[in-house]
Amino acid sequence: MPSTLKKKQVDVLIVGAGPAGLMACNALAKCGVDVRIIDQREDKVAAGHADGIQPRTLEIFQASNAHSFSYGLADRLLRDGAQLHTAAFYNPGPYGGIELTDRVPDVTAPTARYPFELTLHQGEIESIFLDSLRGMDVEVDRPVIPSSITLLEDKVDDYTAYPIEVTLQHSSNSQQDQLEEVIQAKYVIGADGAHSWVRKALNISMIGEQSNFIWGVVDLTPETDFPDIRNRTAIHSNNGSCMIIPREGDKVRLYIQLDTENAGEFLTSNGRVDRTKVTPQKLLQIAQKSFHPYTLQMPKEFEWWTVYVIGQRVASKFSINERVFIVGDACHTHSPKAGQGMNASMGDSHNLAWKISHVLKGWAGRALLQTYEIERQNYAQDLIDFDKKFASLFSGKPQTENCVDGVSHADFLKMFQTFGGFTSGIGIHYADSIITQSSSQRNTKHLIVGQRLLPQLFMRAADSRPVEIQDMCPSDGRFKVLIFTGDSSQKATLQRVQAATQKIESLFSKLSEGNIFRAFDIISISTASKAIVRYNELPLLLRSHWSKALIDDTDATGTKGGDGYANYGIDRADGAIVVVRPDGYVGVVAKLDGIATIDAYFSSFMARF
Amino acid sequence: MPSTLKKKQVDVLIVGAGPAGLMACNALAKCGVDVRIIDQREDKVAAGHADGIQPRTLEIFQASNAHSFSYGLADRLLRDGAQLHTAAFYNPGPYGGIELTDRVPDVTAPTARYPFELTLHQGEIESIFLDSLRGMDVEVDRPVIPSSITLLEDKVDDYTAYPIEVTLQHSSNSQQDQLEEVIQAKYVIGADGAHSWVRKALNISMIGEQSNFIWGVVDLTPETDFPDIRNRTAIHSNNGSCMIIPREGDKVRLYIQLDTENAGEFLTSNGRVDRTKVTPQKLLQIAQKSFHPYTLQMPKEFEWWTVYVIGQRVASKFSINERVFIVGDACHTHSPKAGQGMNASMGDSHNLAWKISHVLKGWAGRALLQTYEIERQNYAQDLIDFDKKFASLFSGKPQTENCVDGVSHADFLKMFQTFGGFTSGIGIHYADSIITQSSSQRNTKHLIVGQRLLPQLFMRAADSRPVEIQDMCPSDGRFKVLIFTGDSSQKATLQRVQAATQKIESLFSKLSEGNIFRAFDIISISTASKAIVRYNELPLLLRSHWSKALIDDTDATGTKGGDGYANYGIDRADGAIVVVRPDGYVGVVAKLDGIATIDAYFSSFMARF
Repeated sequence: MPSTLKKKQVDVLIVGAGPAGLMACNALAKCGVDVRIIDQREDKVAAGHADGIQPRTLEIFQASNAHSFSYGLADRLLRDGAQLHTAAFYNPGPYGGIELTDRVPDVTAPTARYPFELTLHQGEIESIFLDSLRGMDVEVDRPVIPSSITLLEDKVDDYTAYPIEVTLQHSSNSQQDQLEEVIQAKYVIGADGAHSWVRKALNISMIGEQSNFIWGVVDLTPETDFPDIRNRTAIHSNNGSCMIIPREGDKVRLYIQLDTENAGEFLTSNGRVDRTKVTPQKLLQIAQKSFHPYTLQMPKEFEWWTVYVIGQRVASKFSINERVFIVGDACHTHSPKAGQGMNASMGDSHNLAWKISHVLKGWAGRALLQTYEIERQNYAQDLIDFDKKFASLFSGKPQTENCVDGVSHADFLKMFQTFGGFTSGIGIHYADSIITQSSSQRNTKHLIVGQRLLPQLFMRAADSRPVEIQDMCPSDGRFKVLIFTGDSSQKATLQRVQAATQKIESLFSKLSEGNIFRAFDIISISTASKAIVRYNELPLLLRSHWSKALIDDTDATGTKGGDGYANYGIDRADGAIVVVRPDGYVGVVAKLDGIATIDAYFSSFMARF
Repeated sequence: MPSTLKKKQVDVLIVGAGPAGLMACNALAKCGVDVRIIDQREDKVAAGHADGIQPRTLEIFQASNAHSFSYGLADRLLRDGAQLHTAAFYNPGPYGGIELTDRVPDVTAPTARYPFELTLHQGEIESIFLDSLRGMDVEVDRPVIPSSITLLEDKVDDYTAYPIEVTLQHSSNSQQDQLEEVIQAKYVIGADGAHSWVRKALNISMIGEQSNFIWGVVDLTPETDFPDIRNRTAIHSNNGSCMIIPREGDKVRLYIQLDTENAGEFLTSNGRVDRTKVTPQKLLQIAQKSFHPYTLQMPKEFEWWTVYVIGQRVASKFSINERVFIVGDACHTHSPKAGQGMNASMGDSHNLAWKISHVLKGWAGRALLQTYEIERQNYAQDLIDFDKKFASLFSGKPQTENCVDGVSHADFLKMFQTFGGFTSGIGIHYADSIITQSSSQRNTKHLIVGQRLLPQLFMRAADSRPVEIQDMCPSDGRFKVLIFTGDSSQKATLQRVQAATQKIESLFSKLSEGNIFRAFDIISISTASKAIVRYNELPLLLRSHWSKALIDDTDATGTKGGDGYANYGIDRADGAIVVVRPDGYVGVVAKLDGIATIDAYFSSFMARF
């Protein structure tokens, strides 16, 4: 029986402190939002589970620290994680055993800032967020289990209301008594995994099916003579398929395909897995066969292991009235071998957090929140379509003399590379909406509206320091307005810039009640050369701090940076205004004198009524 | 009266916890040496003082963490410091005021890994060391003042003796009583600054003189319309000379030349400074005149300021019987404007620490310790010779119509760039000694014996990760033996490598009583291509861990690294053995089959008798 009954209000309640929940919590806390996060587990994950970080996710981590220029949360990932630079492919050789067919770059995304995948134990990834949150005085409340949720539908459009009521059960090992608490929230984010309580409580259905593909996973420190044990390696052998994912330190994860031929003893008559019969030793024995002629020793211990059937499903909707949202595994599940799961999950939160923040602060109408489902449900569906192709190709028999209809290396490689932009996360392209207006695309040829801001090294005008433009655009909840001035060292151009800046200032002043920098940051990029540029010749709005004025030139040594206008497809005479959303995606672009386009963009969602 | 008398033995006692003392302490502690450090100050420096970090010092900081690959102590410097990429030069223009004459790269050292100077408040630099030391359970004992030192000369050659006795006075603000303590040490390092107590107690004289150049220094957050306030700027005006050194955040340091014309009121009749008459406001007024026509506002407060006369002196010797050593300002003083002081000081400690460690551990004879004075006294003398030229050129009147004999920009720039290798620290070239054997030079054309190991990106054979070779050679007190194998994927070459490795293993086994990796690390670099290399085809000694086997190829994307053999001037057929000293300097080089050269090198100083 509950010993006390508390009742409290919070702007955002997050249910679940895995990567998706923590990413959302960190992003909201960085924006200064009143947020609370609960989890039913006693502690963070200790071993195993998801651990692949894709290039775009690295960029998002790097942007996830608004306070310290160029040292975001990616820092610890890069220091502690394993980096996967090469993908190796092994196929049956002439003597029956496998042989090296090909090695290619693991990431096929030429604009990736970090051109590799990274692996790190999920517990470490959670730690990075937990430490960041601790710095903002936010702790995960655990173990806490939600027991009921109610949404007052007649209040969903009331900006001042707390229309959601959630009852929480606190339990503690040390004391036997339970504490019941009722929370009133403006928004709830269900980040509570594939078996999401939030999703079920709100009757959101999952669409899709279980596949027939069954996989075993073992984490171990291998002893082997296999030369590609530290590369991401796909083995297609006549004795089954296997994927090697190197991990931090000397550890390796093996994904081992299980079928009736190699794992009949685990399978029930209806094709399901009988978990009581599986041991990691048996899984490794299956892997050993596909490694032949290379040897893989049976280790003394396994760090972690599991068996799973691939389920490929997407939630029918991602929110209830844009008040309760689900993110991550709660709204999409797919196979882990392409290393997408945690990335897709954190990407959901990254997409959602700033939108909630803007609406809470009164800077945008609630229509902004609809773009979450528009953008992320599409993406989840694409992911599952890809996953089906990938899983079926990977699970297919290799093409050999005896199996001419099998999967050829060329087929597999083509698939691997065609989807490189997608799997790396770099190619994510959000469809048109109030915050993604591709009708403006013509103003920047290569900077694509709906895609993330392309990485580019510019030089700070005042101190010649090379800076990555992505580092100038941290996830601090503000829109970044990049003003490409052209050659501001030319008097005529400077006059045009001054005229344009007056209009820009007047618009953003209007949009922010005179407090421009609360919701916007303004960065200027001139084509003036480093030899003669004077950073302080620009209007003050374009250099609110000296570090905000950049030039498109190489660094002092002449070896780094330059060609930014060309890489972005911006005309040096026309200049440009580029609006980057708080999540790093290009929202709208205009010529320097095209302020009306910018006005129309923000007016479409910043006004509440 | 002393309340207690303790008597304790320690291997190394360091007097003084400024940058030189802390660098020595950190290096010794990393080597596992029993070390103690005392300082007379209550706390670390709070503001001002030295703050320029040169490119080579950044490399040394980066190497100063043996535990965490590629994340050395440079990390915090790079994150928090100001980076100086450009040097700007202003001279009198046609209208009397100054104008921009030139901008050039601040660092003229093409091989610098970090091609910029860095500035950071000395207290922050001390913090980096203090935090590192805390991680090894070493704390600075303070405030503690040494009151006597005795060296028993008849015991200096006894490896087991503690021939130095130092009496220490502990004082504390909270209690009025003093504690006296007597320490017996094997070695003492005097890192106690320009007025070194250790130096004076041992009667080491300083050779050189005071100059006539007097400078004022102010640290402030400037308000100005001067366009190069964030660059390292030399101003030569008709109203005096001034040097701008940007610092962390928005701060700037100004060095202001004082002479009878602009600062007569501060000077006594014999040309000395009357400090009672100086204020930072008066110093800034002098600077304001040289900034004309640009304006520089008088700030509300100054973070720090001082006035000094340049003294250019070197100690007559750097040690007493290679038992008591002096490092840093205790053995050389010079002007601060070229930003050399702290770098030279920390460089002394970096040079000395590993030598003491090797002798203490019984891995080398005491003759090794003589190389400290040989190497660092020469360097200090070079520094002062440079400093004299630099100071006199910088202090000279600028060349104008009315002053045709003045210093021209061309003169000054030539000097600035000619000495770029020297001032960056990159060009330091140690003369021949038992640990620097340039007779072997012919084996590596561009990797110069006596200079620091050239930075170069190689690729790890096992996982294709690009690694900077300097990061493979941390300051862990061990010699790094780089084995350049040639193309180990060729059968004939591999056989040669196997034969050479047997000899290498036998030599290092002999040198280390069978415990090779206690004093040596072995890294192999093959020219096998990334497409076909098998890291595990090499003999085990060349891949004691999979991360130790490198190849000279570009990374997976084909954009980074490669050409290492060419950059080092190593013949791909001959291969090479490169011995890198524990401080990162090349000691000896040989062809792959030239093990006799390597044997002779180590035998010359590793044997005690």
